[in-house]
Amino acid sequence: MADLLINLDALKRNYLKLAGMAPGALCAAAVKADAYGIGADRAGPALWRAGCRDFFVAHLEEAVALRPHLPKARIYVLHGPAEGESAAYLAHDLIPVLNSLPQIDIWTATGGNHPAVIHVDTGMNRLGLGTDEVAELIDNPDRAPFPVALIMSHLACGDEPGHEMNALQQARFSVLGEALRDSRKEAIPLSLANSAGVLLGANYHFDMLRPGIGLYGGNPLTEGDNPLEPVISLQARVLQTREVRPPAAVGYGAVYRVSGPTQLATLDVGYADGFLRAFGEGRWVPEIGGHKAPIVGRISMDMTIIDVSAAPPELVAPGMAVPLIDGVDGIDRAALATGLSAYELLTLLGHRYKRSYVETNG
Amino acid sequence: MADLLINLDALKRNYLKLAGMAPGALCAAAVKADAYGIGADRAGPALWRAGCRDFFVAHLEEAVALRPHLPKARIYVLHGPAEGESAAYLAHDLIPVLNSLPQIDIWTATGGNHPAVIHVDTGMNRLGLGTDEVAELIDNPDRAPFPVALIMSHLACGDEPGHEMNALQQARFSVLGEALRDSRKEAIPLSLANSAGVLLGANYHFDMLRPGIGLYGGNPLTEGDNPLEPVISLQARVLQTREVRPPAAVGYGAVYRVSGPTQLATLDVGYADGFLRAFGEGRWVPEIGGHKAPIVGRISMDMTIIDVSAAPPELVAPGMAVPLIDGVDGIDRAALATGLSAYELLTLLGHRYKRSYVETNG
Repeated sequence: MADLLINLDALKRNYLKLAGMAPGALCAAAVKADAYGIGADRAGPALWRAGCRDFFVAHLEEAVALRPHLPKARIYVLHGPAEGESAAYLAHDLIPVLNSLPQIDIWTATGGNHPAVIHVDTGMNRLGLGTDEVAELIDNPDRAPFPVALIMSHLACGDEPGHEMNALQQARFSVLGEALRDSRKEAIPLSLANSAGVLLGANYHFDMLRPGIGLYGGNPLTEGDNPLEPVISLQARVLQTREVRPPAAVGYGAVYRVSGPTQLATLDVGYADGFLRAFGEGRWVPEIGGHKAPIVGRISMDMTIIDVSAAPPELVAPGMAVPLIDGVDGIDRAALATGLSAYELLTLLGHRYKRSYVETNG
Repeated sequence: MADLLINLDALKRNYLKLAGMAPGALCAAAVKADAYGIGADRAGPALWRAGCRDFFVAHLEEAVALRPHLPKARIYVLHGPAEGESAAYLAHDLIPVLNSLPQIDIWTATGGNHPAVIHVDTGMNRLGLGTDEVAELIDNPDRAPFPVALIMSHLACGDEPGHEMNALQQARFSVLGEALRDSRKEAIPLSLANSAGVLLGANYHFDMLRPGIGLYGGNPLTEGDNPLEPVISLQARVLQTREVRPPAAVGYGAVYRVSGPTQLATLDVGYADGFLRAFGEGRWVPEIGGHKAPIVGRISMDMTIIDVSAAPPELVAPGMAVPLIDGVDGIDRAALATGLSAYELLTLLGHRYKRSYVETNG
C-alpha cells in the first residue's frame, strides 16, 4: 500500500521556529482535520513534547478522540457547543470556542464556572460574535458569567501580506478584543495569528499564536520562500511493470496512447487515496533517481500508471517504493500543479495510506 | 458534524437491478476504497443479504478489515500478493487476483492448491497478464499449478458505449480468456463487466458481473439517464447565522463581497470532509426548501458559508441540517459542476462525516 511518510522531527522544528518568532506569546497548534491529515494521535503528542500545551480542533468528536493522547493539554473546540453537547465538553475537560450569543447562552447553562473562549469576528464573516454582540457583552458582562480563557479572532487574508484586510482586522481586533478584555475582571489573553499571522509580524502576535499549515510544512504565504520544513512525503509501490508499443492505449478512456516503445509501471495509489485525477494528464511529473517518470493516462481509484522509460530499471521493480510527492515545497508545488490548495492536498492525503512516522526521542 | 446519509435499501435494489440484467451470470460487488466511501463494513453485509457472495477489494489491508463482516464470502484482492504477503491471504481465506507471471510465481510458492484469479490485460495496460504471458500459461499450464477460480479482465472505456475499445476488449477477452480456460482441466468462469459492462449488453456479461459505481448510485455511462437509484446524500449542520451588509467580505481571501443585505449561514462541512473548494465560487448551488442557497466565498477546511437570504428562516437555525448533495443524480450533477468525477466525489466523502445508515430488515 502507498506510504505517507511523516517527519515528526520536522513538525517539532516547525513548531519551535514559529513559536520563536514571538517569544512573548504562547504558541498553540491547530490539529483539526486529524492534524491536517497527518494523524492527530501522533502529531499532538509530538507537539506536546516540543512544548505545546494548547491544541485547537474543529469538532467535538475530534476533541474527544484526541483527549486520550493529550491527557493534560488544553483542547479547544472551534465550532463550539450545539444544544445538548455541553455535557460532553465537561466530561472530557474541553474548552469550547463560543462564536455567537446563542452559544454563549448554551455554555452559561452549564453553571457559569467552566472556562470558554470568545471568538470575535473582525471581517471574515464566518464564525464569531459580530460587533453588536461584542458591544452587548461589554455592556453586560454577566451575559457571559463563566471565566473567559481567551479572546480570539481569525485572519481572512493573512496569506497575502499586502492585503488591506490584514491591517483592518488587526485594528478591529485591537479595539474590540481589548475593550472586551478590559470589561472583565480576569486577565484574558488575546489571539489573532494563524501561521500567516505569525509571519506578518509583532502587531499580529498578541498573546497566543495558533499556527496550522506552517507546522505541517505548507507555505503560509502565497508568495516568497517557505520558511518551514517539509513534514510529509508520499511514496507508492510498484504493482507491475510492462513494456508496450504503439498503438497501445493506457488507462481509462484510452486517452493516452504511447508514441514509441514505452516502459510502464502501475502504482498502488489512486484518487481514493487523495491522489486526485488533477495530478494526471501531464500536470505532475514524479522523478525516480533524478529521471522524469510522467503520469500517463487517467488516474484510477486505486492505481496510477507512470512512464518509467527513462528511470533506472533497478529502481522500479514490483514491490519497490517510488516517490510521488517529496522534497522542499513538495506540497506547495503539487498545489500549483493541480490547482488544488496545499491545505486540500494535505487533508485529503492520509485517510487510506499506511502512515510511517519518524521521530527522534519520541 | 456533517452527516452522510446512506440508503442501504437503495444499494441492495441497485445490486438486484444490475444482477437481473444478466440472470445467467453471478453478480459480484466491487467494495474497494471502503465501498466507494460509504463504508465497506456496512455495505458488504447489506449486499450479502441481497444475495451477493463475491466481493472485490483493491488492497490486502482492505480484505483483512472486511473479512470479519463477511465471514463466509469470497473476497478477492485486485492488487494481488506482493512478496511476503501470501501468508496473510491464506490466514484470512482471501483469493488473490494475479496480474503477472511474477505474481503467479509468488502464489505458486504457497503449494499449488489455493485458488486464485488470473487477470488478463485486454488493452487497458494497467494490470493483468499480457498476451505473451497468457500464451506461456496456455502452453505450460503447470506454470500456474493452483486452482483458477476466475479469469477476468477490465474495460477501459465501458462508460462510452460507442468507443471502439469496447468491442476490441470484448473480442480479445473472448479469444484469450476462452483459450486460457480451455487449456485447463477445471471449469473456470470468465468475468469482464464492470457496471458499464453490464449495461453494454449480453456480449459483455460472460459468467460474472463486477459492478461498482452503479451499486452506489453513480451513472455508469457518461451520457443518458442513470438507471440506478441514488444511495448517498450529504447534509451539513448550521453552526451560525449572521446578517451582513455591504461592503462586507466573506471567507478566506475576501474574494466574495455582498451586494446588499445578506443572510449568511456557516455550515460545519469543508474540504477536509471531501467537500472540495471546487464546489465553491458559484459552481454548486444547494437548495433549502426549494430556494437557492448559493455557496459564497471560498470553502474552508471545516466550514462552508452559504447565502440563505432566500431560504425560509425556520429551516436554517443553528443546529439544523441543510441538504448539500441529494436527489436523483445528485452525485452526477455535483461531478458535472465541480469538474471532479463522480467516483472521486464518492470516495472522498465519508472519511470524516458521521455516517447514518438506513436499511429495512438489515
